[in-house]
Amino acid sequence: MEINGVKIDDTFAEAFPCWVSSALVTAVSRNWAQKISIEATGFATSCIGCAAEAGVDYYVPPDTTPDRRPGYSIMICNPSKKKLKEQVLERLAECVLTAPTAAVFNGIPTAEEKIPVKLHFFGDGYERQVKVGNRDCWAIPTMGGEFICEEEYGIVKGVAGGNFFIMSDNQMSALMGAEAAVEAIDGLPGAITSFPGGIVASGSKVGSSKYKFMGASTNEVYCPTIRGKIPSTKVPEGINAIFEIVIDGVSVESVNTAMREGIEAACGVPGVKIISAGNYGGKLGPYQIKLHDLFK
Amino acid sequence: MEINGVKIDDTFAEAFPCWVSSALVTAVSRNWAQKISIEATGFATSCIGCAAEAGVDYYVPPDTTPDRRPGYSIMICNPSKKKLKEQVLERLAECVLTAPTAAVFNGIPTAEEKIPVKLHFFGDGYERQVKVGNRDCWAIPTMGGEFICEEEYGIVKGVAGGNFFIMSDNQMSALMGAEAAVEAIDGLPGAITSFPGGIVASGSKVGSSKYKFMGASTNEVYCPTIRGKIPSTKVPEGINAIFEIVIDGVSVESVNTAMREGIEAACGVPGVKIISAGNYGGKLGPYQIKLHDLFK
Amino acid sequence: MEINGVKIDDTFAEAFPCWVSSALVTAVSRNWAQKISIEATGFATSCIGCAAEAGVDYYVPPDTTPDRRPGYSIMICNPSKKKLKEQVLERLAECVLTAPTAAVFNGIPTAEEKIPVKLHFFGDGYERQVKVGNRDCWAIPTMGGEFICEEEYGIVKGVAGGNFFIMSDNQMSALMGAEAAVEAIDGLPGAITSFPGGIVASGSKVGSSKYKFMGASTNEVYCPTIRGKIPSTKVPEGINAIFEIVIDGVSVESVNTAMREGIEAACGVPGVKIISAGNYGGKLGPYQIKLHDLFK
Amino acid sequence: MEINGVKIDDTFAEAFPCWVSSALVTAVSRNWAQKISIEATGFATSCIGCAAEAGVDYYVPPDTTPDRRPGYSIMICNPSKKKLKEQVLERLAECVLTAPTAAVFNGIPTAEEKIPVKLHFFGDGYERQVKVGNRDCWAIPTMGGEFICEEEYGIVKGVAGGNFFIMSDNQMSALMGAEAAVEAIDGLPGAITSFPGGIVASGSKVGSSKYKFMGASTNEVYCPTIRGKIPSTKVPEGINAIFEIVIDGVSVESVNTAMREGIEAACGVPGVKIISAGNYGGKLGPYQIKLHDLFK
Repeated sequence: MEINGVKIDDTFAEAFPCWVSSALVTAVSRNWAQKISIEATGFATSCIGCAAEAGVDYYVPPDTTPDRRPGYSIMICNPSKKKLKEQVLERLAECVLTAPTAAVFNGIPTAEEKIPVKLHFFGDGYERQVKVGNRDCWAIPTMGGEFICEEEYGIVKGVAGGNFFIMSDNQMSALMGAEAAVEAIDGLPGAITSFPGGIVASGSKVGSSKYKFMGASTNEVYCPTIRGKIPSTKVPEGINAIFEIVIDGVSVESVNTAMREGIEAACGVPGVKIISAGNYGGKLGPYQIKLHDLFK
Repeated sequence: MEINGVKIDDTFAEAFPCWVSSALVTAVSRNWAQKISIEATGFATSCIGCAAEAGVDYYVPPDTTPDRRPGYSIMICNPSKKKLKEQVLERLAECVLTAPTAAVFNGIPTAEEKIPVKLHFFGDGYERQVKVGNRDCWAIPTMGGEFICEEEYGIVKGVAGGNFFIMSDNQMSALMGAEAAVEAIDGLPGAITSFPGGIVASGSKVGSSKYKFMGASTNEVYCPTIRGKIPSTKVPEGINAIFEIVIDGVSVESVNTAMREGIEAACGVPGVKIISAGNYGGKLGPYQIKLHDLFK
Repeated sequence: MEINGVKIDDTFAEAFPCWVSSALVTAVSRNWAQKISIEATGFATSCIGCAAEAGVDYYVPPDTTPDRRPGYSIMICNPSKKKLKEQVLERLAECVLTAPTAAVFNGIPTAEEKIPVKLHFFGDGYERQVKVGNRDCWAIPTMGGEFICEEEYGIVKGVAGGNFFIMSDNQMSALMGAEAAVEAIDGLPGAITSFPGGIVASGSKVGSSKYKFMGASTNEVYCPTIRGKIPSTKVPEGINAIFEIVIDGVSVESVNTAMREGIEAACGVPGVKIISAGNYGGKLGPYQIKLHDLFK
Repeated sequence: MEINGVKIDDTFAEAFPCWVSSALVTAVSRNWAQKISIEATGFATSCIGCAAEAGVDYYVPPDTTPDRRPGYSIMICNPSKKKLKEQVLERLAECVLTAPTAAVFNGIPTAEEKIPVKLHFFGDGYERQVKVGNRDCWAIPTMGGEFICEEEYGIVKGVAGGNFFIMSDNQMSALMGAEAAVEAIDGLPGAITSFPGGIVASGSKVGSSKYKFMGASTNEVYCPTIRGKIPSTKVPEGINAIFEIVIDGVSVESVNTAMREGIEAACGVPGVKIISAGNYGGKLGPYQIKLHDLFK
C-alpha cells in the first residue's frame, strides 16, 4: 500500500489501556492559557521515567468555555488510577493554581468515573463556593485576585502507545514529516503526542542486554547508524533516520483518527519513504491498530 | 524611594541557598532547541510541590556552542543535592535524549563540583566516546540518528527565592508589569523565573490555620479580595492585585541583577503603583536582599 | 445595556462597502504557511496610507486544503477593484511565489466575480498546467522546487470599517481587553483585523484643522490625555485609554459576528469599563451596525 | 574548500549599494514591540516588486532603549533615497503610530545623513515636544494615550543583495539548512533577510526570454526540476533543491559577517551538500564577496 508514493508497511501499532484525565485551563488571554497549559504538561513524556504522560490537547475558544474566556484542554494520563490522581492534583496545584488569571474546569464532564482534586484547601477557609456557567466551583483568594476551579475531574479508560514510524534516507525529511504529522494531530480533540514537539527520536526496547540494571535501552534493531553491526536489523535499505510519533487518546477511535491524519500529513512531505509502526508481536498490548485498516 | 513614579517599599526579599545545575541543550534549529528545553523544565515551579525548580535561562547562538548549533541554557535547582542529581538525570533522559536532533552539554564547565549523569547506558553497549568541540561526549545510536551528551554536569551553591511583588489598583496593570519584569530577566544569564510565564499569582504561607494537613496555603494577608476580613492585612489601600516574581540564580549577584532589571521594567508599565518583596522577618533565609540597595 | 458589568453604548459602527479577495496559502508546515501569510499581509493596516488592508484570516488544516498540506486563509481588501487586482498580484508574486514550499489557491471558489492573477509568466515558458485536488493550477519551476498556484481569485463585495471601542480608566486593561477581542475574532472565518496585533491606538478624523495638507489627523475628541482642552470631548469621565478594533469582512454577517464575539471577549477582561463604536453620524457609510442589536 | 563536509564553491556574491535606514520600535512588552515591527516590515521582500526591502533586525533589551522599554531595531532599504524617505514615513505612520503603546526612535543616531519623518502633524496642533532619554521627541495625543517619536532618522549607504545558495539532494535538508542560516543571521545587528522567513525559493533572472513584458522571471539554469531541459544548467549533479539567502546590511562588513555565520550554520545541518552564491559575472554590482575569503 502507498500514499502519495510513500510505502505504508503492512504492520500494526500495539497499544495499551491507560487512564486518561482532562482539564480545561482558561485565562485572561489565549497566550496565557497556552503558557500555563504547557507548564502543567511539561516533564511528562513517558511513564517509563516520568510520573505521567501529558500534553496540550486543543484550543477552546471563549464562546464554549464555562467562564467565556479562552482556554486549552490538557490531557494527563497514567496506567495507574492512583498515580493519575496524584499527578492531576500536583500539576493543577503547582502549575495552574499558581498562574496569573488561571481557572480550571473538568475536561470530561460526561465521564462516569471522577477523581477528586481538592484545591480549595489552599484557601485556608477563605475560599467560597461559586457557580461559573453551570459548573460548581470554588473561588480561592490569592495575591493576584481569585483562583476558580472545579474539584472533580472525569477520567476515562483510554489508550496509550498508539504509534507510527516515519522513515527517510535523510534525517531532515524524516523530521519535517514527523512535524507535519504532529501538526495534523494537534487540532484533533481527544489525542495528544506527549514527547518534546510531539516526536520520539529514541524509541526503546524493554530492558538492556549489556546493562542489566536498565529498565529500557535503545532499540538497536531500528537504529540506522549501526545497521551494519546488527544482523537482525529492521532498518530498511537506504533509510538513515526514523522518527516515531506516540499517541495517547481518550479512546481507540481518537487514536485511530490521530494516526490516520498524522500518517497522511507525513506522506505529504518530500523525501519521506516509508511509514511503519511499533509492536511486540501482539504479545503485550490488547490493542492492535493495523496501518492499512486506517485507510479503508 | 520611587522609580518612574512607582513606590519602592523599604523592605527586603528573603532568599535561601539552593543547589543549581545547568545544561546546554542544542538542536538542529533554535525552534527545536527551545521546544526541548521547555519540556525538560516543565512541571517545575516550586520545590514545595514539584521535584525541582527549573526554567529556560537564555539562548546560546551557534557560534558559542560545542557543536556549533543553536542552543538554550536551562537551569534545574533543588536544595537537596541528591534530589537534584535524580532530577537532572530524569529530565535529561526523558525530555532531551528522547527529542529529535537533540544534544546536551555541561552548562557550568568551570564548576568545582560535578554530578554524574550516566546517559550512555541507554546505548546498551552500542554507544561510543567522541570529542565534540573540546568536550568529552558519548554518541548513542537512536532511531533518529545519534544522541550526543556529556556525562558530568557542574553544580554550584546558588540562591532560590529571590523575589519581588508588583502591585496595582488594576489586575491587568499588575499583570503587564509582571510580564515586563519577566521579559527583562529572560535574557540575563544565571537567573530563571520558574513559575508559568515567570509569574506567581498565589503566594503562599507555610502551613494552614484551618486545614492542619496542608503544608502551605494562601497568604491571606496579601490577598486583595479579602482585605476587609483580615485585620493584619498587608494589602495597601487601593491595591487590587499583586503578582510575585520568584527568581533562582547561580549566585546572589545574578539574583540581584535580575531583581533590579525586573523591577525597573515593571516600573515602566502604566498603572503599576508599588513594588514590595516577601520575607519572613529575616528569620528563615540567610540572604536578605534590600530593594533600595539594588539601586545604589 | 451591560455585559458582565461593562456598559455597552447605545450607538452604532458605520461601515463601508469594500472589495474583498481571499487566498489560501499552503506550505510544508503550519509554521511556514503562517510566516508566509504574515509577510504577504504586512504593511496593510488602512487604505488611508497603505495600498491595501490585509490580514491572516484563519488556519486551514491539511485535510481540507487542495494539496492536503496545512494552510492559512488570507484576506486582501480595497474599495477599488483595480487596486485590489494590483495588490493581490503583487503580494502573491513578491511574498508567496518567493517563499519556500509555498502554494496558493483561490480562497473563494464560489465567488461569481473573479480577478486574474497571472503568476505563471514567471515560469518563462517552463511552467506547466497541473490539477491539484480539483483545482486547475500552474506548476512553475523554481530553485527550491516547484511553485503551485491557481490564477483566478474570487472577490466579493464585502464590508470595511466595522469597529468598536474598548475604554478603561487604565491603559493596560483597555489593551488586554482589546487583545481578548482580537483573539476571539482570530478564529472566525471571513473577518480580519488589519492593524498591528489587530488593534488601533490612534483613531483618526478626516483632514486636519491646523495642518491643511494632512488627509487625516488625530481624533482629538477621543483623546484622553487632552480631554481638558477639548470642550466637545467624547471621552467619558474616568476613562484614560481607548483602543479601537477595526474589522473587514466578506459580508455584513461576518462583521456582525466578529463584533459580537470581540465585544463579549473584551467584556470578560477586568477593568474594561465601556464599549462604544465610531461613526460619522450616519452620513458617510451605508452600513450602520448598532451595538445593542448584536446581542438581540 | 569544505566546511563540515559541505563543499563551498569558489565563487562570489555580487552585491549593490543601497540606502539603509533604521528605526527602533519600542512598546510596553517585547511581544508588542515584535508584532508592530513585523507589520511595519511586511510586504517588503524585494525592490523588484515591493516599494522597499525591510526586516526586523534584532531585539533591544529595555536597559538600552531611550524609554527603557523593550524594542526591536528594524531596517528599511531602497536604492533610491527619495523612495526610502516615502517608505519610512508611510511604514512608521501606518504601522507604528497606529499601534498600541508604540514609540519609535532614530535607529542610527550617529549617521551623518538624516531623513525627516514628520509624524507630529498627525497631532493636529495638540502634539508637544518632549525629551525621552537624550532624544528630542514629539508626544502626540491618541485615543490609546500618547505616541512618542523622533522625527529625524539616520540613513547610511549600505549594501543590498549579499547572498548565498544552499543546495541539497533533498528539499527538506536544503530548507532546514536555510532556516539554520537565517537563525544565525537573526541576532546579528546591521543585517536583515527580507524574504518570508528569510529564505528565497524562487531566485530570478533579469527579464524573460518568452514573455517580453516581464521584468524578471525564473532563473531556469538553477531550477532542479527542469535540469534535463536546460543545456546550460548550473544545477550540480544530484542536487534537487536550492534555497537562497539574500542579505541587506548597513555595511559590507555586516553583510560579510552575516554570510559567514549563515553559511557555517547551514553547513551544520545534515544533508546540505553545497554552498554557492549568485552573481552576474561581476558586471553589475560593485561588491564581489568571495565565499572562500569569508573564512580566511
